[in-house]
Amino acid sequence: VRHNARIGNTRQQGVGTVRIAFLGLGIMGTAMAANLHTDGRDIVVWNRSAERAAPFRDRGVPVASSARDAADRADVVISMLADDAATNAVMIDGGALDALRPDTVHLNMATVSVACAREMEQLHSERGVHYVAAPVLGRVNVAEAGNLTILAAGADGAIDRVQPLLDVLGARTWRFGTRPEQANAVKLAANFMVGCAIEAMSEASLLVEGFDVAGADFLEMMTTSIFPVPAYQGYGAAMASSTFEPAGFKFSLAAKDMRLALAAGEEASAPMPFASVLNDNYRDGLAHGDGHLDWAALSRVAARRAARG
Amino acid sequence: VRHNARIGNTRQQGVGTVRIAFLGLGIMGTAMAANLHTDGRDIVVWNRSAERAAPFRDRGVPVASSARDAADRADVVISMLADDAATNAVMIDGGALDALRPDTVHLNMATVSVACAREMEQLHSERGVHYVAAPVLGRVNVAEAGNLTILAAGADGAIDRVQPLLDVLGARTWRFGTRPEQANAVKLAANFMVGCAIEAMSEASLLVEGFDVAGADFLEMMTTSIFPVPAYQGYGAAMASSTFEPAGFKFSLAAKDMRLALAAGEEASAPMPFASVLNDNYRDGLAHGDGHLDWAALSRVAARRAARG
Amino acid sequence: VRHNARIGNTRQQGVGTVRIAFLGLGIMGTAMAANLHTDGRDIVVWNRSAERAAPFRDRGVPVASSARDAADRADVVISMLADDAATNAVMIDGGALDALRPDTVHLNMATVSVACAREMEQLHSERGVHYVAAPVLGRVNVAEAGNLTILAAGADGAIDRVQPLLDVLGARTWRFGTRPEQANAVKLAANFMVGCAIEAMSEASLLVEGFDVAGADFLEMMTTSIFPVPAYQGYGAAMASSTFEPAGFKFSLAAKDMRLALAAGEEASAPMPFASVLNDNYRDGLAHGDGHLDWAALSRVAARRAARG
Amino acid sequence: VRHNARIGNTRQQGVGTVRIAFLGLGIMGTAMAANLHTDGRDIVVWNRSAERAAPFRDRGVPVASSARDAADRADVVISMLADDAATNAVMIDGGALDALRPDTVHLNMATVSVACAREMEQLHSERGVHYVAAPVLGRVNVAEAGNLTILAAGADGAIDRVQPLLDVLGARTWRFGTRPEQANAVKLAANFMVGCAIEAMSEASLLVEGFDVAGADFLEMMTTSIFPVPAYQGYGAAMASSTFEPAGFKFSLAAKDMRLALAAGEEASAPMPFASVLNDNYRDGLAHGDGHLDWAALSRVAARRAARG
Repeated sequence: VRHNARIGNTRQQGVGTVRIAFLGLGIMGTAMAANLHTDGRDIVVWNRSAERAAPFRDRGVPVASSARDAADRADVVISMLADDAATNAVMIDGGALDALRPDTVHLNMATVSVACAREMEQLHSERGVHYVAAPVLGRVNVAEAGNLTILAAGADGAIDRVQPLLDVLGARTWRFGTRPEQANAVKLAANFMVGCAIEAMSEASLLVEGFDVAGADFLEMMTTSIFPVPAYQGYGAAMASSTFEPAGFKFSLAAKDMRLALAAGEEASAPMPFASVLNDNYRDGLAHGDGHLDWAALSRVAARRAARG
Repeated sequence: VRHNARIGNTRQQGVGTVRIAFLGLGIMGTAMAANLHTDGRDIVVWNRSAERAAPFRDRGVPVASSARDAADRADVVISMLADDAATNAVMIDGGALDALRPDTVHLNMATVSVACAREMEQLHSERGVHYVAAPVLGRVNVAEAGNLTILAAGADGAIDRVQPLLDVLGARTWRFGTRPEQANAVKLAANFMVGCAIEAMSEASLLVEGFDVAGADFLEMMTTSIFPVPAYQGYGAAMASSTFEPAGFKFSLAAKDMRLALAAGEEASAPMPFASVLNDNYRDGLAHGDGHLDWAALSRVAARRAARG
Repeated sequence: VRHNARIGNTRQQGVGTVRIAFLGLGIMGTAMAANLHTDGRDIVVWNRSAERAAPFRDRGVPVASSARDAADRADVVISMLADDAATNAVMIDGGALDALRPDTVHLNMATVSVACAREMEQLHSERGVHYVAAPVLGRVNVAEAGNLTILAAGADGAIDRVQPLLDVLGARTWRFGTRPEQANAVKLAANFMVGCAIEAMSEASLLVEGFDVAGADFLEMMTTSIFPVPAYQGYGAAMASSTFEPAGFKFSLAAKDMRLALAAGEEASAPMPFASVLNDNYRDGLAHGDGHLDWAALSRVAARRAARG
Repeated sequence: VRHNARIGNTRQQGVGTVRIAFLGLGIMGTAMAANLHTDGRDIVVWNRSAERAAPFRDRGVPVASSARDAADRADVVISMLADDAATNAVMIDGGALDALRPDTVHLNMATVSVACAREMEQLHSERGVHYVAAPVLGRVNVAEAGNLTILAAGADGAIDRVQPLLDVLGARTWRFGTRPEQANAVKLAANFMVGCAIEAMSEASLLVEGFDVAGADFLEMMTTSIFPVPAYQGYGAAMASSTFEPAGFKFSLAAKDMRLALAAGEEASAPMPFASVLNDNYRDGLAHGDGHLDWAALSRVAARRAARG
């Protein structure tokens, strides 16, 4: 694996010479696009619902009236759309892909399925456009700080061209291969591992609570001794205090990503029994109306099964 | 939860006034007993096979000829024996328990079942002897440095009496209740969580490898971004390089602790599907002769299932 | 649930007045189409590869040169195609659907996904054509005997129209609702239950073999006492003698149906832990190259995990 | 495997010459002891609580005041006690084993663990007494009809001696080996398979209900087509009508047998993922207070997880 750690003067390379279209101003997209603007990049933004674009307009960032219009002017298109369906809706049905000039780089930083990545790459290739997958690790505060971990895959030359932008957005870019779907597989595997940590804390808490040890005490001990990292600490604190709103990462989205991971695992002919357990537990939670909560609510599923809901 | 962090002058309290019998000089026990001796404590040691006691004799530490003899002279007995069976063999069949004078504190720092803890406490109570469970988190290097995380449960007064000794052995003592079995439940839950981390890395690696991403690259990324802690890093490196010998923690012992965790979970009426998966995977590994390897060899089980053995 | 048991004179109803196009002459389709011909029905057949149609031509049955041509002449189209993809290829891409006249009934007796059924029903409805799902239970010998169990769903009037044909093909038709997908959900659930029986026999055999009881003896006892039915007896005998070829129902197809069942279960928000276990075991078998075997080879997966491969 | 089917005149062999002590008059024991009495056997009965022995006394059957007294007079002791603990309490602590004369045959027809069988055999062997394990398949109505399926293991000569009695109690005796524990392993595996059938019906019903197909309709179809046997029909009807009381076989006992099966599977180093799922589901049910219901209430566990409780 090759990776690029951000180097001091990298940010200055080519500032202003590359026209960027940024599609999708959700929570993450907003933070990322803002960082590019702040860094002095030539950027135009677009979002399906106009109100999320308003703050950009107020700061003097051009707002395109359609994804197609945004794409039309760009050297690099960065998309941060919700899922496979949104990606297809904007790029294919919405005509953004057809608007791209040959040799443009489309940098898809959203979490989509490996099948979507494969299809996108095919469609881009047919049009002489480069497709790079670069999903990210990190919550919104990490995105705001420009410290995302970026998981990239695609043609080396194409990634090289966008590396200066990735250096603005993230602390480090990992390159996992030349086929875009590889980065998506890595992202799904990463999310799966975090889900496993949440489930492990949930079951372990149930166990100790059965012996009248407070789950909160147990989790405090674990997250200051063996697992003193934000992933465990944050989700551990959420489940210890039963605070699942507002959702940092929604249960329903985690459930969706889990399905994408299972589908990817099927292509890999990999038995993934932990993934299967998680999948069943996500169904359980969705059936009980927990989809809008944070995915730390996997602990609610576990507690309910032990009649400690 | 209450806990005691080691304070500077704690080590000086009562040095030399309390006679300690240390039973069980395995890898961990040796490191712990040596620390007590180095700290100037009045200690006598015993081990089933005499050769492991020889280094202590060479350093001038009294070596008892039997556990019973060691216990007979002690104010505090610390046992660090292999498992339930060894604990019963030494304390009950070997007569060590009967040799204890009333008001002695028996500090069992080994990982035993909650059922064993409960039975021990009952037997000790009948004899007017205090039983404290204080299993530990940390490998041998952590034990040597006196930095173990100690998980204690038992009568407060009894723990208070041995706290100065615990301060020699560990960086921090957590108290999880007044019933000794509570500490054992916590220890089993902690081991379970580490096992989950290993399994999660194993399955996630299979997934990305199915897309021609090297598992080692993926694990390097994960253990420097989301999970930058020794537990993930060490086991991740072991599985990335397929280095399972020498075993830091043997697969067969991990399998045993998993069964103890499942048994504890049964008492807690807690469905633990991750624990069930791990239990089946340990069986798989044991059936394939992997019991002597490090428990990171859970990744071998996963790989074998995907025909990538 | 309403069901129709075949009544003596039913077969005579309307013989010869309804023109039938039969698409798909696999093993099952051949048996079914032959029965319709033998019963005196007005039938034209089509198959993707011509050689499977030759025996029909030899018997004087008209063979269409394309699915579209076959459909063009029909009052009722019966399709028995391999899967979702084949169904789409023939009906949509191949133009058969567009060739249907309004009010025609398309009777899809293959095992397809609920999503496929839903989409098909929508497309048929837009064209004023009736879509009835009627997948079947029973192997080829049952099909040849006209004794299939038929699981039907669709508009009552449409099913009524094809009931005389269903009476030729099956011993009994069960009606599970007016939405075609309902019958497909039932079929997937039925296959899932048979898969569970195979897995249960596999694991139970491993257990007794661990005590030096021959799996064959155990299975003989079980399939003559508690489970004296062909499903258990046939698969039990196959695994007892390790005879997995020729495949009665291919492992790879069973794996595919399992995925369809899981997908249906997801729509139902139903945690299905047995289905998840089966899914992982199918992946294991596929990874080991067992896809061409009979699905009783789930016992090979189980045995391999216990190092008794 | 060898088996003995009851032959016409078998019942007359040795009637009245063998003194039988029957220990344990639960529902099954009562039916079995009554059949032996009706057949003209020389029998004395004992039960822990005297009231269950009263009907025997009324019919002129001698009732012993203790298990020890009953055993003291016997050539053959048949025990049908609740579980491992009851077996130990009566045979060991209660002194029944010590009361047996050399060459007596102890026929244990209860469902106990393989570990219990092994220990019993050892203790009997030390006293020159024969130990035969012969657990049974069949509910009380089958027992009353003398049609049990008997699963026997032990020394051939010892089984030969009790075969005439087994012929009174069952329709067929299967012999699975010379080590008693073998029969217990078979019995646990058999119960496991029935549990799997119940779980499979539960999950499949959830699936179809998600498509508005009544579970009762689906189960009626399945249990008249593929699985037309009492095990499926009875449990299917129970879950279709949510009738779980009175319990034919209690959920809590099924949960216990499942644990024994898992323990046996551990000795066999057999991964048993279906058994693991069932174990977690039993815990779930016990946590929700379903222990007193029939084990068909596994369907309640499944339904609750899908929020259809």
